[in-house]
Amino acid sequence: MAAEKEYDLIIRNGWLITMDAAGTRYPSADIAVENGKISAIGSSLPGSGKEEIDAKGNVVLPGLVDAHMHMTLLRGIGDDLPLMRWLYEVMFPKDAQIQARHIHAAAIMNQAELIRGGVTTFLDIFRFPSESAAIAEQSGLRGVFCPQIIDEPAGAGETLESNLAFIEAWKDRVPERLYTWFGPHAPYSNFPETYAKIAEYAEHYDIGYHTHICETEDEVRQIKEKYGKSSVKLLDDVGALNPRFSVAHGVHLSPEDIELLAERGVGVVHNPSSNMKLASGVAPIPELFAAGVKVGLGTDSNLSNNNLDMFEEMRIAAFLQKLYRKDPSVLPCEQVLRMATMGSASCLGMDHMIGSLEVGKRGDIIIMDMHQPHLYPLLPEPNTNVIEQLVYSASAADVWTTIVEGRVLMHERQVRTLDWAAAQDLVVEMAQDLISRSDIWRRLGREA
Amino acid sequence: MAAEKEYDLIIRNGWLITMDAAGTRYPSADIAVENGKISAIGSSLPGSGKEEIDAKGNVVLPGLVDAHMHMTLLRGIGDDLPLMRWLYEVMFPKDAQIQARHIHAAAIMNQAELIRGGVTTFLDIFRFPSESAAIAEQSGLRGVFCPQIIDEPAGAGETLESNLAFIEAWKDRVPERLYTWFGPHAPYSNFPETYAKIAEYAEHYDIGYHTHICETEDEVRQIKEKYGKSSVKLLDDVGALNPRFSVAHGVHLSPEDIELLAERGVGVVHNPSSNMKLASGVAPIPELFAAGVKVGLGTDSNLSNNNLDMFEEMRIAAFLQKLYRKDPSVLPCEQVLRMATMGSASCLGMDHMIGSLEVGKRGDIIIMDMHQPHLYPLLPEPNTNVIEQLVYSASAADVWTTIVEGRVLMHERQVRTLDWAAAQDLVVEMAQDLISRSDIWRRLGREA
Repeated sequence: MAAEKEYDLIIRNGWLITMDAAGTRYPSADIAVENGKISAIGSSLPGSGKEEIDAKGNVVLPGLVDAHMHMTLLRGIGDDLPLMRWLYEVMFPKDAQIQARHIHAAAIMNQAELIRGGVTTFLDIFRFPSESAAIAEQSGLRGVFCPQIIDEPAGAGETLESNLAFIEAWKDRVPERLYTWFGPHAPYSNFPETYAKIAEYAEHYDIGYHTHICETEDEVRQIKEKYGKSSVKLLDDVGALNPRFSVAHGVHLSPEDIELLAERGVGVVHNPSSNMKLASGVAPIPELFAAGVKVGLGTDSNLSNNNLDMFEEMRIAAFLQKLYRKDPSVLPCEQVLRMATMGSASCLGMDHMIGSLEVGKRGDIIIMDMHQPHLYPLLPEPNTNVIEQLVYSASAADVWTTIVEGRVLMHERQVRTLDWAAAQDLVVEMAQDLISRSDIWRRLGREA
Repeated sequence: MAAEKEYDLIIRNGWLITMDAAGTRYPSADIAVENGKISAIGSSLPGSGKEEIDAKGNVVLPGLVDAHMHMTLLRGIGDDLPLMRWLYEVMFPKDAQIQARHIHAAAIMNQAELIRGGVTTFLDIFRFPSESAAIAEQSGLRGVFCPQIIDEPAGAGETLESNLAFIEAWKDRVPERLYTWFGPHAPYSNFPETYAKIAEYAEHYDIGYHTHICETEDEVRQIKEKYGKSSVKLLDDVGALNPRFSVAHGVHLSPEDIELLAERGVGVVHNPSSNMKLASGVAPIPELFAAGVKVGLGTDSNLSNNNLDMFEEMRIAAFLQKLYRKDPSVLPCEQVLRMATMGSASCLGMDHMIGSLEVGKRGDIIIMDMHQPHLYPLLPEPNTNVIEQLVYSASAADVWTTIVEGRVLMHERQVRTLDWAAAQDLVVEMAQDLISRSDIWRRLGREA
């Protein structure tokens, strides 16, 4: 008699919402992971797992993908300021003083939050990416790291050179879990030639790149005045638009911009909380979908959101379009859940490996604790309201278990891979240090 | 030697955010409750408590006040429909079939959620208010119950007669915790004479009344066509505007309407999530504040929100105004926290007894678990970001303890007064029953 099959991980009896192309859901099924990949889905799978989790009728989802965020530290400092005061008295002074140790502390805090909120893959565009990547080695999350290159003003960010050095240093360090990309900041802070060079380098290294685009009306005006065209057209004219490229925000896009993004296969990452908080505007999400653009979802950062709760982000994405279009049927909940999973995965060029629960894909899985008052009544299949409850009522705090490549990063809300309790004092100390170095309290008229 | 002072409850070492008129905060203080009222606030209070809670540097807030909600059952059923299909194929059929036992189940679910989200006082305007009030007797929450009177179409709601009977039956049953009010639904579903009568009855009984007003552009147009004036002017002309009266939504108010509301002392309850989800519009909150109107906050219901998370509601209230006014400095976080506490309390005519932590006020208190990644870095007084973290990053799930009149309804997230686990099956059964009776699946084109 053959030995019993042993998997690395089996989740039993889950309500599987696969987010595959057909939208398949299993009211009760097992899902097994072997060598980091989903190797079986079915009822009462024979065999055993080195780790077995009983999902007891709870919901099993593909891990959420936060396709645009910054590993920032100073949550809740300088909120509610007019935009120019915020930029000149908080953001720029802070960015000029930031050091690797600040990012180290921020990365522990942010990655602990991501794990607790069911995010299994994130794209981080910011400073000192080695610090964040080193924490991700330990946290077990899947990450894409984009050193944030700023040409003007010089010294405000990473450089093309530091980006290249980072790629060289990390390219083989954690294959297929930690990715090194290029991170040009924005068309108003980078030269068009930088985008042109990056497009070539990206092809050479076979990697992606990511930028901010058309976030504010100011940017649109400024680029138009300087170059006589839109940011999207500008980057297309230097050969930078292609499927390796994903852009964040895309709030102020013309129909021609949208057409170009669709033709060139560029993904757009929507950040609705940030766009509301910073008064940027409302992105044309239905038009992007209609044009066939890949659309993902991101939290932007704890400075502009102020949390990394992708459930809240889904809810706000839907509500904002309903309000803005004066039609409650716009952007229905299943489409929003798809944005946060397959949509974001395709913006990262990873839709073949994550974003849905399918055999052969990576074992990036979350389990939701559904038996709570705010998720009831929970109706069984086939006439269920499970997607409605997840998108319109759930929050990050309802994530029970977070798994990447079959490794359990959190279970029963206990994070296993990062020691948050031990890091709390360090996070406050580093925040105080950065505030003090950048003289923020004095700039804001408070006593230090 | 005198006997040691014994309080009913002492919370020790809390970071008290009192929300009093001066905005007083105590970095570390004790707060004691005796006979349902706050009897002392100070450092190292002498004496002991029958129950003592160590708040260990966590935040202590006045309980949140949800000043407009409906005790509804069918969360997540019929979302994402165009407004007219939702009204005619889900809401009206459902409302015609609703029975007391459905409200009984809904009340357990909703009140468990409110307790878990740090809401200590709610205003419920809906059907079969005795059911919801009976659950509130048990849950320990403070509640205002408004039977939802609908004149047209007849039979769609409560009546002036059933409202009067409810008041008579409940007026002395749980004094100063459960309040019976009048609940005329809206100017388009009630006759002006009904409001006129209610205004007189309310004075007779010395109680309040509550309605929906200017929620949609349709309402404004309809009332203008029928009466040649605005809803606000209409109700003023029948003598219904006075400080006993609070109104929900107020999305489409003219400057003259706002002036009238201010002059007459009418409170306006803002429901931003609902206004977004149902595409109603953006309420003129800064104008209401500028005119001196009392402004509170509400969740509306699990049908239109879809949760009762007042922290999320605060965040959305602020973000929505920032976006709409194109200015990130509009509606700062402390003002929003005041809306959810003192603002809502004043809409209920209860600002002398709840809404802030002050000696002599009721012991309605919540404790927040602040030591979580998404609430960090948490900077100490005086240059703290504690209000920012609470309003822009916290959620209902961060409430650790909920107390009403010194009675601990939840501690360490365990609800003590309602047995949610025992009620789950009933809630699903009642939801299925109501869906089936109102034939919703067939109306929506799904198989039953």
